[in-house]
Amino acid sequence: MARRRIGVWLIGARGAVATTTIVGLIALRKGLVGTVGLVSELPFFAPLGMVGCADIVIGGHEARAQPLAEVADRLCLEERLFATDVLAGCRRELAKIDKNIKPGTVRRVGPRIESLADVRVRKIQETPREAVDRLRADMQDFARRQKLDDLIVVNLASTEPAVDDKTLSRRWSQMDKRLSQPRKCILPASALYAIAALDAGFPYINFTPSLGSAPRAIQELAQLRETCHVGADAKTGETLLKTVLAPMFAARNLEVMSWVGHNIFGNMDGRVLDDPANKKTKVTSKDNTLKHLLGYQPQSLVSIEYIESLGDWKTAWDHIHFKGFLGTPMKMQFTWQGADSILAAPLVIDLVRLVDAAHQRGEVGVLKFLASFFKAPLGVREHEFSRQFQMLVDWAKGAG
Amino acid sequence: MARRRIGVWLIGARGAVATTTIVGLIALRKGLVGTVGLVSELPFFAPLGMVGCADIVIGGHEARAQPLAEVADRLCLEERLFATDVLAGCRRELAKIDKNIKPGTVRRVGPRIESLADVRVRKIQETPREAVDRLRADMQDFARRQKLDDLIVVNLASTEPAVDDKTLSRRWSQMDKRLSQPRKCILPASALYAIAALDAGFPYINFTPSLGSAPRAIQELAQLRETCHVGADAKTGETLLKTVLAPMFAARNLEVMSWVGHNIFGNMDGRVLDDPANKKTKVTSKDNTLKHLLGYQPQSLVSIEYIESLGDWKTAWDHIHFKGFLGTPMKMQFTWQGADSILAAPLVIDLVRLVDAAHQRGEVGVLKFLASFFKAPLGVREHEFSRQFQMLVDWAKGAG
Amino acid sequence: MARRRIGVWLIGARGAVATTTIVGLIALRKGLVGTVGLVSELPFFAPLGMVGCADIVIGGHEARAQPLAEVADRLCLEERLFATDVLAGCRRELAKIDKNIKPGTVRRVGPRIESLADVRVRKIQETPREAVDRLRADMQDFARRQKLDDLIVVNLASTEPAVDDKTLSRRWSQMDKRLSQPRKCILPASALYAIAALDAGFPYINFTPSLGSAPRAIQELAQLRETCHVGADAKTGETLLKTVLAPMFAARNLEVMSWVGHNIFGNMDGRVLDDPANKKTKVTSKDNTLKHLLGYQPQSLVSIEYIESLGDWKTAWDHIHFKGFLGTPMKMQFTWQGADSILAAPLVIDLVRLVDAAHQRGEVGVLKFLASFFKAPLGVREHEFSRQFQMLVDWAKGAG
Amino acid sequence: MARRRIGVWLIGARGAVATTTIVGLIALRKGLVGTVGLVSELPFFAPLGMVGCADIVIGGHEARAQPLAEVADRLCLEERLFATDVLAGCRRELAKIDKNIKPGTVRRVGPRIESLADVRVRKIQETPREAVDRLRADMQDFARRQKLDDLIVVNLASTEPAVDDKTLSRRWSQMDKRLSQPRKCILPASALYAIAALDAGFPYINFTPSLGSAPRAIQELAQLRETCHVGADAKTGETLLKTVLAPMFAARNLEVMSWVGHNIFGNMDGRVLDDPANKKTKVTSKDNTLKHLLGYQPQSLVSIEYIESLGDWKTAWDHIHFKGFLGTPMKMQFTWQGADSILAAPLVIDLVRLVDAAHQRGEVGVLKFLASFFKAPLGVREHEFSRQFQMLVDWAKGAG
Repeated sequence: MARRRIGVWLIGARGAVATTTIVGLIALRKGLVGTVGLVSELPFFAPLGMVGCADIVIGGHEARAQPLAEVADRLCLEERLFATDVLAGCRRELAKIDKNIKPGTVRRVGPRIESLADVRVRKIQETPREAVDRLRADMQDFARRQKLDDLIVVNLASTEPAVDDKTLSRRWSQMDKRLSQPRKCILPASALYAIAALDAGFPYINFTPSLGSAPRAIQELAQLRETCHVGADAKTGETLLKTVLAPMFAARNLEVMSWVGHNIFGNMDGRVLDDPANKKTKVTSKDNTLKHLLGYQPQSLVSIEYIESLGDWKTAWDHIHFKGFLGTPMKMQFTWQGADSILAAPLVIDLVRLVDAAHQRGEVGVLKFLASFFKAPLGVREHEFSRQFQMLVDWAKGAG
Repeated sequence: MARRRIGVWLIGARGAVATTTIVGLIALRKGLVGTVGLVSELPFFAPLGMVGCADIVIGGHEARAQPLAEVADRLCLEERLFATDVLAGCRRELAKIDKNIKPGTVRRVGPRIESLADVRVRKIQETPREAVDRLRADMQDFARRQKLDDLIVVNLASTEPAVDDKTLSRRWSQMDKRLSQPRKCILPASALYAIAALDAGFPYINFTPSLGSAPRAIQELAQLRETCHVGADAKTGETLLKTVLAPMFAARNLEVMSWVGHNIFGNMDGRVLDDPANKKTKVTSKDNTLKHLLGYQPQSLVSIEYIESLGDWKTAWDHIHFKGFLGTPMKMQFTWQGADSILAAPLVIDLVRLVDAAHQRGEVGVLKFLASFFKAPLGVREHEFSRQFQMLVDWAKGAG
Repeated sequence: MARRRIGVWLIGARGAVATTTIVGLIALRKGLVGTVGLVSELPFFAPLGMVGCADIVIGGHEARAQPLAEVADRLCLEERLFATDVLAGCRRELAKIDKNIKPGTVRRVGPRIESLADVRVRKIQETPREAVDRLRADMQDFARRQKLDDLIVVNLASTEPAVDDKTLSRRWSQMDKRLSQPRKCILPASALYAIAALDAGFPYINFTPSLGSAPRAIQELAQLRETCHVGADAKTGETLLKTVLAPMFAARNLEVMSWVGHNIFGNMDGRVLDDPANKKTKVTSKDNTLKHLLGYQPQSLVSIEYIESLGDWKTAWDHIHFKGFLGTPMKMQFTWQGADSILAAPLVIDLVRLVDAAHQRGEVGVLKFLASFFKAPLGVREHEFSRQFQMLVDWAKGAG
Repeated sequence: MARRRIGVWLIGARGAVATTTIVGLIALRKGLVGTVGLVSELPFFAPLGMVGCADIVIGGHEARAQPLAEVADRLCLEERLFATDVLAGCRRELAKIDKNIKPGTVRRVGPRIESLADVRVRKIQETPREAVDRLRADMQDFARRQKLDDLIVVNLASTEPAVDDKTLSRRWSQMDKRLSQPRKCILPASALYAIAALDAGFPYINFTPSLGSAPRAIQELAQLRETCHVGADAKTGETLLKTVLAPMFAARNLEVMSWVGHNIFGNMDGRVLDDPANKKTKVTSKDNTLKHLLGYQPQSLVSIEYIESLGDWKTAWDHIHFKGFLGTPMKMQFTWQGADSILAAPLVIDLVRLVDAAHQRGEVGVLKFLASFFKAPLGVREHEFSRQFQMLVDWAKGAG
């Protein structure tokens, strides 16, 4: 029996997270690095027999023009994200993969992201339907040419401004029609990519807080095409810690009076979030968790600030003011100094492998068992990390 | 049907944790404070119908002479642990409760604790058996005079030096005999109290890292008398956080390279732990958790230092150095600024109520479902806080 | 020779800083507290023979109605700023002093402060000139009735919105005329108080970032009346640390790439600063220092956020990202947990005593030797704390 | 006129600080890096016309065998101390400089350092006098062959155990005699190197807390040979911050109740300090400063712990508990994350250039104006960093 061979299609394929994911996949294949950071390599998941990292072929869409190798150079040499021998061992492959990256769309991504896009991408004139058709064709061509068993599409593009989802069509048939009416279709790029993927039967993962596959009509499309999807907004740092720490305060009946979180970093994500419209999408996704976890809403503050010198090294300071027995106020503070792309990239690989395993097993619709990976898990009310992780372990037991 | 009325018998009844527990029980009864900090007041546990805080009568043993009211004054006015109106509302009761406190024993507690004890307690001449008989009689008298439905004995005394438990008798019949042979009996005070309590059929809680009811022979005694016990070393600060955070690193396959924890505080506990013999017992109890939680032993360091100016305000700084994807090193740090007694006292009340509920339901031996309260839970291998807490919730469902 | 006896006239006399100052002065007089925190009690300044704390009589203006004793209660019991025996020892005097507090003015203080003012103060109808005349008369009456050798006026009122000082009259004669033309006079309350004080020959201290005596025309008035003044914005926490730490980075030729400071607290000052107009005045005053100290402007961020649960306990987190030899990036972080009023109040007393000493010695105009007390020292370019403090010590040597 | 050309003779020439210094000197000469981190490049010091970094020739003594290039590889690739292009640009030169490094001595350096030394160095049999003669000859040969205008000797070797300096000869004539009596001569290696250097007329810099040139008799030797020296223990991190921050607490009359400092790192220095005898020398040097700076001794704690994963990245956490007005306790905490060698290396270069300038100007004995560089400045009572730095600036003005 031939070994399973799948593709990963990265939206935002030349961003920091995508580049780190690509470097990681190459380095894993060549044995230059170990599997630390990969959840899917924990013993729990061995029985699933997931696709190997060496058997994942890479392509994608991108709006920016800088070659992958240059991005990787910067991440390695300036940001010190990984060792130079890893970079050296991947350079040749990066150039090859670059050829698999097609021009994306910047439809309704907001002026900040648009201004950073390649002029050729910005100039493309097309209706939403034409965009979806073009993007889907790129994905299907890739799957065909590479003779893939499946193609998993992952949105890693910069955070778009929030969309008022109340105004969206609630049925796929209606939304489908509107794709041909540019003025009526307010769907941003992330949703067009989701439609392109799901319509072709490919699973879709929304790694960002952008709209993606969240609209009801797009969820219906996934059901119609009998494919699966999941999101949104991968949980890598401060929010991960919130979903680990807040349950402790709740279990000890300690009353959180205020929870202040300041995040500073200086990568492209930070530059995009410096635009208040884009930032709002992000902060909302981060801020909803406390009420879920504690059962009440303490005063809370989440700030995200672009500090150029930090680059990809996201630093968070959280100050938790809580009340204990006899009303005595006490404090916990933490700082988290993590490289955003290094934390995110292995989760991209984990999700690709796990989603592929689920798709192969015939699962359709939102994959709820993946909630532990997301800040705002689609269709899941459970926010406590340990319980979310247990959902994953339990699924693996059942599916393995 | 008459309302259930129980007693709590505090070993170390004039220490900071005991005094805060007593102030808390009085203040709860008088409605001066709310129930924040009490785990047993969470909705999960309402069906258990536990004894009310107003129905707990207080007595205990103590080796030190300072009146309760003076200790409470210091905790309120110098340490700022609770508001002055709480203190004012409790003063009269404290004087009454002081009369229920009997001289304890300082047998084999180490020179540091001995030096802090009242001279009358230090001068008591008795064999281990005589000590056990005296202590048990004090407990039984109290239970009889107060017409209690049950008496729960809680060890809150300062940490004793470690005992080599390999040299202890493994059967109760042998240990029992040795109680009359002072030279052969190496049991420290905490074990004598445990024997006194269990022999009388009273449940015993070891809130400290001292030996207590851990020896096999004493566990046998609990079985013989059909009573229950639990311990050891209540989890209130840094270790609680370890058992919450380490599972996250494990679940994300992030490799903890080193975990350094420095604890500074200046209460009596700190003065006792300033003696290396006593400190060793404590540090060992704190340090074992990481290996259990991670599956490997990273370099780890736990220091406890006596800094007088901090009093009861225990401050911990933890530095966690971990390796992520592509081998990239990252860091998390936290500081925890909590009042030790304020964190511990509600857990004493919780344990008393939960142990009473279990005893009433006929549970015998080690109460494993209480693991979430302890750093070194007797008879339990599970160290992950969220799973330990789930054990408690599940027990309540079954028992309620 | 009769002992010197002076008055301090507090603008914002029922605010937290003023109340703490008043409690402090009473407690010092009664021997309830020591002199810790008072710069003027350092041995350097003994030769000056400054007025004793027992010889300072207190009066002031205020726009809010809550009695001093209630404010003090809150600061003591809720905020835990000082011990209850200090409060008990001061209560009677607080009631007396309350009678020396007259209604102030809320002219051009912005809607946020106005909304917090007593309705009687808000309703006062008067031209700027009438306001100045009324305020000056209050001060002069107090000085006369109390038979004071001098009266020092200190602005402790909430921060006003910024004023565009380019539009202000540059000569006192012009500004004086405009006081009768309400539409043309854009001076906010702080400047009217300054004019009232200086016109009467009383020294004026601007403890806040509000306009105060900064306008050139008001500085001319001080010269004309041969009195002295100083400001602005007392340096108590994060900025104090900046003026101590930044010179170290400069002296070691370490390049500060970014300096991020987040301040959280929940007192009245915080509520007022929650209005962006008022906050801007503050943040500007805080942010200018780095360029002065380093010789270049690193990316810097200063945030001030109102977190109610913290009350007067101002917590700052600063993250300093700097580049060392061979371009290697390194980091320093600090947290500062201080009670704002406790840090500020002794400086009020210090300034009153030092300004009185200077006024007695005939010094006229801006008192530059007091730069170490201020974030934005009027007329002084030196921002390095150690050099500013040396200016104070040198002045004392010359003046003593 | 020929350009001045000097040599630097590094004791411990293959350690991390020395290697970083050497890489830095090469990289500066080749223009691969800028001058950030070099105090001597501040504008204050331009008038001194110091020797250029390109005109410093490198040699030294070492007890360990690992080639410089290997050490540099580790510092660059594993520790991420500097960029790989810097390393690449220096490799060829490192091999050349390696040939200028001669076997040192491990006399009385303690078993920990001895165990890390090359077996050939450990086996050298010689009296102290023979050692001094050999070491001096190595220095003189180098100076002659390289045709140097001067040679500056810098001790960068690992910290030796403390020596009881009361038992040392107080006159050079006596100490000189004892050099031939191995049993009576308790001088450790650092002092023998100092004698070798000074006896040859070369200036000596003690960058470490070891004994070096501190003994009175060795100071006399410097006078006799009309040369200069300075030390001890370069101030690079936590102690630097203490000498910057403690004066602020003193100037504000804030009472420091306790100052706790924990240092964790994992370089060779850390391994040596893991031996309590060696650590004592270090901790003593770090701990004396507070009393000098505050005028009283608060409870203080300095710990240094070897945490392997941190390598050269020294992390310090300091917790400062201080009392303000009305006795209110407050807190400051800081963390410092610096690469030890990156912080130290530029100071080596600064000291070499400044000592050379002083020697050229005929200064003899201890160079007190360099106090700002040291934790325990020889012959200087001033510990406040800003005043020490002013001493340096003032000297430069006078000397320039």
